[in-house]
Amino acid sequence: MSNFRLGIISSIYNGLPKEAQITRIEFEGPEIAVYVKNPSILNDKMDVIRNIAKQIKKRIVIKADSSIRKDQKETVEIIKSSVPQEAQISDVKFDEELGEVLIKAKKPGLVIGKRGLIQQKIFMETYWRPIIIREPPIKSRTVEGVLTHIYNETEYRAKILKVFGERIHREIIFKDRYVRITALGAFQEVGRSAVLVETPESRVLLDVGVNPSVNSGERMFPKLDIDQLRLEDLDAVVLTHAHLDHSGMIPFLFKYGYEGPVYATQPTRDIMALMQLDMLDISEKEGRPLPYSAKEVRKELLHTITLDYEEVTDIAPDIRLTFYNAGHIIGSAMAHLHIGDGTHNLVYTGDFKYARTRLLDRAVAEFPRVDTLIMETTYGAQGQTNREESEKQLIDVINKTINRGGKVLIPVLAVGRGQEIMLVINDAMKRKLIPEIPVYVTGLFDEVTAIHTAYPEWLGKEVRDSILFRDENPFTSDYFKRIEGFREDIAQGEPSIILATSGMLNGGPAVEFFKYLAPDPKNSLVFVSYQAEGTLGRKVRDGAKEIQVVGRDGRVESIKVNLEHTPIDGFSGHSDRRQLLKFLEDMVPKPRNIILNHGESSAIRAFSKVLENPRERDRLGIRSSNIYAPSILDSLRVA
Amino acid sequence: MSNFRLGIISSIYNGLPKEAQITRIEFEGPEIAVYVKNPSILNDKMDVIRNIAKQIKKRIVIKADSSIRKDQKETVEIIKSSVPQEAQISDVKFDEELGEVLIKAKKPGLVIGKRGLIQQKIFMETYWRPIIIREPPIKSRTVEGVLTHIYNETEYRAKILKVFGERIHREIIFKDRYVRITALGAFQEVGRSAVLVETPESRVLLDVGVNPSVNSGERMFPKLDIDQLRLEDLDAVVLTHAHLDHSGMIPFLFKYGYEGPVYATQPTRDIMALMQLDMLDISEKEGRPLPYSAKEVRKELLHTITLDYEEVTDIAPDIRLTFYNAGHIIGSAMAHLHIGDGTHNLVYTGDFKYARTRLLDRAVAEFPRVDTLIMETTYGAQGQTNREESEKQLIDVINKTINRGGKVLIPVLAVGRGQEIMLVINDAMKRKLIPEIPVYVTGLFDEVTAIHTAYPEWLGKEVRDSILFRDENPFTSDYFKRIEGFREDIAQGEPSIILATSGMLNGGPAVEFFKYLAPDPKNSLVFVSYQAEGTLGRKVRDGAKEIQVVGRDGRVESIKVNLEHTPIDGFSGHSDRRQLLKFLEDMVPKPRNIILNHGESSAIRAFSKVLENPRERDRLGIRSSNIYAPSILDSLRVA
Ligand SMILES: [Zn+2]
Ligand SMILES: [Zn+2]
Ligand SMILES: [Zn+2]
Ligand SMILES: [Zn+2]
Ligand SMILES: [Zn+2]
Repeated sequence: MSNFRLGIISSIYNGLPKEAQITRIEFEGPEIAVYVKNPSILNDKMDVIRNIAKQIKKRIVIKADSSIRKDQKETVEIIKSSVPQEAQISDVKFDEELGEVLIKAKKPGLVIGKRGLIQQKIFMETYWRPIIIREPPIKSRTVEGVLTHIYNETEYRAKILKVFGERIHREIIFKDRYVRITALGAFQEVGRSAVLVETPESRVLLDVGVNPSVNSGERMFPKLDIDQLRLEDLDAVVLTHAHLDHSGMIPFLFKYGYEGPVYATQPTRDIMALMQLDMLDISEKEGRPLPYSAKEVRKELLHTITLDYEEVTDIAPDIRLTFYNAGHIIGSAMAHLHIGDGTHNLVYTGDFKYARTRLLDRAVAEFPRVDTLIMETTYGAQGQTNREESEKQLIDVINKTINRGGKVLIPVLAVGRGQEIMLVINDAMKRKLIPEIPVYVTGLFDEVTAIHTAYPEWLGKEVRDSILFRDENPFTSDYFKRIEGFREDIAQGEPSIILATSGMLNGGPAVEFFKYLAPDPKNSLVFVSYQAEGTLGRKVRDGAKEIQVVGRDGRVESIKVNLEHTPIDGFSGHSDRRQLLKFLEDMVPKPRNIILNHGESSAIRAFSKVLENPRERDRLGIRSSNIYAPSILDSLRVA
Repeated sequence: MSNFRLGIISSIYNGLPKEAQITRIEFEGPEIAVYVKNPSILNDKMDVIRNIAKQIKKRIVIKADSSIRKDQKETVEIIKSSVPQEAQISDVKFDEELGEVLIKAKKPGLVIGKRGLIQQKIFMETYWRPIIIREPPIKSRTVEGVLTHIYNETEYRAKILKVFGERIHREIIFKDRYVRITALGAFQEVGRSAVLVETPESRVLLDVGVNPSVNSGERMFPKLDIDQLRLEDLDAVVLTHAHLDHSGMIPFLFKYGYEGPVYATQPTRDIMALMQLDMLDISEKEGRPLPYSAKEVRKELLHTITLDYEEVTDIAPDIRLTFYNAGHIIGSAMAHLHIGDGTHNLVYTGDFKYARTRLLDRAVAEFPRVDTLIMETTYGAQGQTNREESEKQLIDVINKTINRGGKVLIPVLAVGRGQEIMLVINDAMKRKLIPEIPVYVTGLFDEVTAIHTAYPEWLGKEVRDSILFRDENPFTSDYFKRIEGFREDIAQGEPSIILATSGMLNGGPAVEFFKYLAPDPKNSLVFVSYQAEGTLGRKVRDGAKEIQVVGRDGRVESIKVNLEHTPIDGFSGHSDRRQLLKFLEDMVPKPRNIILNHGESSAIRAFSKVLENPRERDRLGIRSSNIYAPSILDSLRVA
């Protein structure tokens, strides 16, 4: 064991009372687990432990030595008798390696108890450390699958956590200090996000995405094959959110030798796996296989360490990571890296929305310290219709369509603004702004809705409070009828609203519904997201009056497009130009370097121009900030 | 053997007449050596060979199979009888491995013969390939030492040349193409020059210097300890000239695992070794050892491949190097890299003088192709006194001093403008502009003068013609009296001119002379080079009237400074601002990217400003060129 780790261990060993009887101290990923034979002695010593943790700046977790843990059957009984029936426990799983017991319940709050008292009681009586998870009201194959997979591999996971732990807590060797940022993808473009952060000690990748608008070839993937990036030397992958343009190439790293951790929020981990497996599926069907398989997705899941917002975590000997809400999709985060002993502080926004939506709170703009900001600039050149106006547009279209006896089809992206639209519709129906007709939800998007119901803590304050404290879950509202794929009876039936994937009409039940609904001018189609070049959605949007599609029987049919179609741009999960500027204006403290990424060249150019304007610089408080707009494979030394 | 090399070999094998009887084809560094048993058959087939070489774009050298080579004694006799006596052959050395015979002569032109006829005769009669070298009129320990060392290690050298050759002629693997430049040293500063050029195939370092104005610590060396630079993956080091701020850290690479070639001109190779060994010496004496030793300098010499100006050479599978005259010091070169099949062309100027001097021709400004230019900017903010005026100043000081019975001390850098000053004085004496008093030359600078006399072909047209065609060598002129170190009789003697190192009065015989000459106001001191902060030269220049020095006996003595001192700035080997601009104006073709280096931040800023001025851009013809001023550790993708 290195001197450095010995120092940490002896601080803990000498700091805790002898009577606790420490048997092991393990580096489990970013946490330090202290296994004791007499945990009850520590019951009123939490401040001592907190003080040690503060002093050595590490996360300490007290666990019970395996010899004193109750057997599994007895433990289950103690849990059931300690927790009120209304909690509705649905599953209990054990992790022998880490001494943890997973408790799944419909009402996890009741398992935790007021001020955590029941959770603590379970630990003290069973000596298993309870991990409490919500059983979502809408069953999610994904959430379940991920957990089952992880709990099937507890031995492997315990082993790699120790490897991560030793790597994170290694000695700092180099005296020379620098921080370099290298653009690997999503610079002067949107898609295939990837940024390499290098210090003399460590290397971290921020996002590793694909370019979903390119089906194959060099431009689909970030530049991962340069000398500078050796997978065996990589310390961590930090994933800001589940969209494939940020996550789609992570499994590739595992295929080519990466053995380290992926840091993400819990919702991001689950949705990421769902999206990757879906992309693998489609790619295979369409005969353009990806450079990895489901095997690597499974490995990636075992290597993922989930973090909450604002939880400070060591991810390398000289780097601390903290996630902050980004307001873009559920679980989306901005990554704050604290590098060295204050050498440098970096914020990478990932995709963010600097405005409150029905689904999520506004992104955070205040940080403990910031020297360099890497910010997305998707809408650096454009404004969006405001939200109130957009909601009004949507309600108008729905009312007009229903009044003339038509149906409203709203194609939604699998992970995007579909849930936001559900909240708008739910609210409008409750407030009688639209009639209570059936709202059908179908496709991959519906599975993502299920994942939302597993993680209400990650939603915006209003909807979170409604679910957790008023027991009103808009996603399980009676207005919504969940269906499997396409249904002809619905397509031919009474007026209704249909929310279906895919969002650009290039697959999924949305296309099937479209084929039925397109010829009738009574029907409406509402586009709530961007329609990429080459998609059916784009053709319709651009005014095509007749369209060729492949029918169920494999033959090409011609379809007349007579329905009304309306694009509404105010539901975007990205900040528009005004919101990007407001973010900079509100930001505390102001960054010395502002690096623009995740935007087309034209958007970056337009936005840089604004940021170079002296009057605007004064207004935003960034008079002395440097503005950079790197290209792929540029490196910038920021410290 | 790889498919790729097999292809090259079979082109040669099938292209040459069978009767030549090829026995081996070897990749010897950048050359392909064809060993044959019947070389005479190829005598009138030189055009066939040239055609093959052109077709496969490789350098082909015909050598004789070792079985047919005459024995060494007989060969020496044949050489002596073929070469006229006036050639004055002084040494003959054999390289059994490469089948070469080194012939050293006072008049190498007479060994070569008209249109190379004697050289060819020697080959055809002895089957040894003659390499003809000048025996300098002033004996140089350095030139001799380097050759002896290389010819002592012919076996090792033949071995590594084969390794280089196979590495250079490896297959191109990556389809993706890019060219990246990374700033490792001498960006926003002067000193520790180093640039990394990366393609998917290969990595090349341009210069690897020290910062001579820093004695130790991080800022003394370029950033060689980054992930991006793995010495075992490095293909080549390209050295533009011998100054330590460009060459001083090359031996360090060999200490830490580099096994590849160093490309340099012949004068650069010899002076580089001299400078490095001298620096090692001084560093050791002053108790701040360098991170390498003389052992690595010797290894570096064996790994050095010398190139002529405008000789196109493969140095990596996708990179061709061509050196062009830089006009800065003897052998100084600009490096032109032709990357890929025309993917990108890069010119790195190193230090350059865009003006003719007495010693050297003006730097080249026309290249076959240029996309990116990396140019030095030392005097980006400053003009210099013009040459005629500077020469006049020097002559005036000398005359004034002699008239009043004083002596003129001119401290000169070991490698710099000392030889230029010699040419000025020689000319002035010949033209009776100054009286024919003795001119004493002493110190390391005199050894460098000796090296100049070994390489007259590398000097400017006028002095070259004078030496080679008119047999007038200014360096061996009777005006100059070469002495060892300091001599008290000279210091106390009649009026004279003394040229001595070091150039900043921080060591060497110059300081000893200074101590004697300083108190007498009849004497003069002329500064012809920059005086760095902290040196004795700087103190004197800044007007100090009394100075503390350590005397011969080790005690501190106080010296009154009464002599006249005059700085003359027009002899610089660097382009001043006007010349830098003229270079860009004359440059053909114009580069798309201009990267500024080798200049203090203030100089770079001032020069960038000029280059950003729309009117100036039009005048220089660089209206659409990008101007970059990177900092150390920035990378720029240029293609
Ligand atoms: Zn490599
Ligand atoms: Zn996104
Ligand atoms: Zn994105
Ligand atoms: Zn130089
Ligand atoms: Zn230099």
